Amino acid sequence: MYAEIITIGDEILIGQIVDTNSVFIAKELNKIGVSVYQITSIQDDKEHILNALKEAQSRAQIVLITGGLGPTKDDITKHTLCDYFKDTLVENKEVLKHVEGLFAKYYKDKPISQINKNQALVPTRAEVLQNDFGTAPGMWLEDKETVFISLPGVPFEMKNLITNKVVPKIVKQFKNPHILHKTIVTYGIGESALAERLEDWEINLPDFVKLAYLPSLGKVRLRLSAKGRDKQVLIDTVDNECAKLSGLIGDVIYGTEDEETIEEVVASLLINKKIAQETCNISYANKNFF
Amino acid sequence: MYAEIITIGDEILIGQIVDTNSVFIAKELNKIGVSVYQITSIQDDKEHILNALKEAQSRAQIVLITGGLGPTKDDITKHTLCDYFKDTLVENKEVLKHVEGLFAKYYKDKPISQINKNQALVPTRAEVLQNDFGTAPGMWLEDKETVFISLPGVPFEMKNLITNKVVPKIVKQFKNPHILHKTIVTYGIGESALAERLEDWEINLPDFVKLAYLPSLGKVRLRLSAKGRDKQVLIDTVDNECAKLSGLIGDVIYGTEDEETIEEVVASLLINKKIAQETCNISYANKNFF
Repeated sequence: MYAEIITIGDEILIGQIVDTNSVFIAKELNKIGVSVYQITSIQDDKEHILNALKEAQSRAQIVLITGGLGPTKDDITKHTLCDYFKDTLVENKEVLKHVEGLFAKYYKDKPISQINKNQALVPTRAEVLQNDFGTAPGMWLEDKETVFISLPGVPFEMKNLITNKVVPKIVKQFKNPHILHKTIVTYGIGESALAERLEDWEINLPDFVKLAYLPSLGKVRLRLSAKGRDKQVLIDTVDNECAKLSGLIGDVIYGTEDEETIEEVVASLLINKKIAQETCNISYANKNFF
Repeated sequence: MYAEIITIGDEILIGQIVDTNSVFIAKELNKIGVSVYQITSIQDDKEHILNALKEAQSRAQIVLITGGLGPTKDDITKHTLCDYFKDTLVENKEVLKHVEGLFAKYYKDKPISQINKNQALVPTRAEVLQNDFGTAPGMWLEDKETVFISLPGVPFEMKNLITNKVVPKIVKQFKNPHILHKTIVTYGIGESALAERLEDWEINLPDFVKLAYLPSLGKVRLRLSAKGRDKQVLIDTVDNECAKLSGLIGDVIYGTEDEETIEEVVASLLINKKIAQETCNISYANKNFF
């Protein structure tokens, strides 16, 4: 099953911000076995949003949209979703109560304005995902075989909704396979030399295991990605392939990603061999590799 | 004129890396008056790439593609570009010389392998943009009204190519308008309350000036974006609108983005008023705003 992420707003397109929202969402979806097919950053523009929704629906079963849910004129996601689904906005009493509650908490003696009350308007077909930290509710809308999930773009509001509302709901509604990624980090060998040493092994990888070479200055990371129904089979297969890798290129592997940096590995080795003390400073030089 | 950016590779789609390449490219394009219409992150998959190229070509005059140019099996961009243009790969002597030079420098006594020599293969219609720091050349390919620019995804190689090859070539080939962004940062007022105070001003903004509200914890940034042929008109108009903003909401503006943080502004005020010394530590509490 595929998901797509659509981020709405010009700030990514003019290079004002880095799209960390999509990274978070992609990671969380992968953990529950949902692959992300495409991430698309588009403008706050009605036609552009409509077109992106249509294209995403043709490819994915889950379309996750972030941004454009604020109370100001440049926020058009809700109206555009109504256009897309030929739907209308109605006031959701639960959301209104939540918005009023937030205002009572932070602006005790100030009356709540109409544009804030409008945050409680949602398309009739939307199931509301209550946003604990803001006035813009998350929305879950189903259409044919696809679920559209619209979330605010403010990171801490979006993250809370993903973790506590969206992920549990997807897990409940869909039977997803498992996805497992493991990244082995090599040092001191170029991408092409590594590929030559691994050619036979790579050809014989099982169909459900995908290999990616990720070169950066001085390092090449090898990512194994496995997808399937049986989690234990994935774990065993990836462990087995990693063991084969150790045999083939153990001399250039220094660890796995998210474990240790090369500086930490070298420091441990030196400390263990009593060549250095725990307080030592280590510097090393990089080199270009191809 | 619009550009689109297509990033090829699964690492963004599984949330393994943040897409900082697109931020860099979008910023550099904006500086020379090229707006980015869409950023699309797609898989290392032939059909997916072909489809993304087709869609981007239907919308943009410049399609910038990063990734998939390495020497390993998972790198399929060059072959896919050939499929897209019904073209074939030919050896480019200049690139081969460059690849051989790099290998002679770093692996003095090792023969250069075929998969590294293959880095010198480029589609016949491609104009090569020499990559000083790696073996994968940048490529400039024209088709009808659209220019396709394919670059390696390794950030320092891509950045060098954008700065020294791509940007000068776009400036030479296209007559672009100017784009100007200015972001005013406000503190202590919610997005909706701000919008209410700015309603009349916002309605009367010139057509070529676009306003965006960018809320985050405790702050709302107001971004003015202007686009047009006459740079001085843009500067004067944006300055004029910012002056109006000072009159309307001067009490909640604390500065412009890329200038000073609120901590620096507060520190300066305290130091100027001799309330604090230059070495003071400042802590402040955030609050939720809507």
